[in-house]
Amino acid sequence: MATARSESPFAMPLEEAMRTQRAIRRLKPDPVDDALVLECIELALKAPTGSNAQNWEFVVVKDRAVKARLARLNRTAWAAYGGIGRWLARRQGDDKTMRMIDAVQWQVDHFEDVPVVVVACLHTWVPPLPSIAASSLYGSIYPSVQNLLLAARAAGLGAALVTLPLWSRTLARWALGLPWTVTPVAVVPMGWPAGRYGPTTRKPVEEVVSLDRYGNRAFARRG
Amino acid sequence: MATARSESPFAMPLEEAMRTQRAIRRLKPDPVDDALVLECIELALKAPTGSNAQNWEFVVVKDRAVKARLARLNRTAWAAYGGIGRWLARRQGDDKTMRMIDAVQWQVDHFEDVPVVVVACLHTWVPPLPSIAASSLYGSIYPSVQNLLLAARAAGLGAALVTLPLWSRTLARWALGLPWTVTPVAVVPMGWPAGRYGPTTRKPVEEVVSLDRYGNRAFARRG
Repeated sequence: MATARSESPFAMPLEEAMRTQRAIRRLKPDPVDDALVLECIELALKAPTGSNAQNWEFVVVKDRAVKARLARLNRTAWAAYGGIGRWLARRQGDDKTMRMIDAVQWQVDHFEDVPVVVVACLHTWVPPLPSIAASSLYGSIYPSVQNLLLAARAAGLGAALVTLPLWSRTLARWALGLPWTVTPVAVVPMGWPAGRYGPTTRKPVEEVVSLDRYGNRAFARRG
Repeated sequence: MATARSESPFAMPLEEAMRTQRAIRRLKPDPVDDALVLECIELALKAPTGSNAQNWEFVVVKDRAVKARLARLNRTAWAAYGGIGRWLARRQGDDKTMRMIDAVQWQVDHFEDVPVVVVACLHTWVPPLPSIAASSLYGSIYPSVQNLLLAARAAGLGAALVTLPLWSRTLARWALGLPWTVTPVAVVPMGWPAGRYGPTTRKPVEEVVSLDRYGNRAFARRG
């Protein structure tokens, strides 16, 4: 059985990595070693895929011109989506959401300065399928994206999961030179964090777990 | 910053958990403590969701009658899908795939005996959306499923990611008492492993990573 070397940047206990993972959007422009990025992606590849097809492709974007194309797509989507979010959050006096929106705004404004942008793709065309087939396809790429985010966190790299730059898959394919047979699914901007990792808050587990049938909050009653 | 206690079942180094995660389908019928299952789900909840909506629901199935409903759905789908897979693998002399198919067959045959089946759901209706919106929704549940699988691996529990029992969302909703506003996405049968965890093999990272534009295998040339 493989044992992680103690000097590995990924030796952090699993629980600590999970409990302190959070979206880090404010990143320093300092470069990140290619070797470290590849090690994170190598761990991403350890995630499961449907029928073990390993039908994934990862595009590591460092060229400023290519980042600028993704940045433009991101700005177009954010101009619509972010405006609504900001209006809603302000209306509801939701400070936490406002802070998140400010961080996303920072990321949108500084997208070209992010040292590394990883785009996770499925090596297949994803048609408007009956939904369970679509689910299986996404289930063959998002587990690897989560491994990538956890690996980044363990190595002290800031990262976040973003989909807005892919609002038009046609334009995203053009930006990255992807053929029709490769579908971009998720974008992970990475770099050394200006922000900080730390514990996150979530709804209590008892409130989202049912026993045997939906709505039977058996574990809450027990507590 | 949270530090994992050394006695935690989830203290395994991140890299070791990722490198030795694999689908464990052959499970012992021995019961699993509810507390351990809930701890795994609590770590699943640490995964990111779009706009931090945390729009998830998890149904923990232990009742044999409910498991039997999912088992029937699984058998129906596998009768079609597994037959094709077995025929293809035999025709190609693909022993590795044949072993995987045998393990899935075991899981299909013994589904009612699996001690715990966790069904991960989105607390939203997933319509046949423009694909990028669908992608964002699946990106709000599969990262948590991957956390669940990694947590199970660290705790020594066997687990696997399955979608076949959900081939009909209508029937799956009926089996679990889910309203239309809750969409089942992934099924994770869990229990103490009869099989063994261990290192997995994957395509080399250089073969699936491009630099700046698709097909530019810059990292392979360097090596």
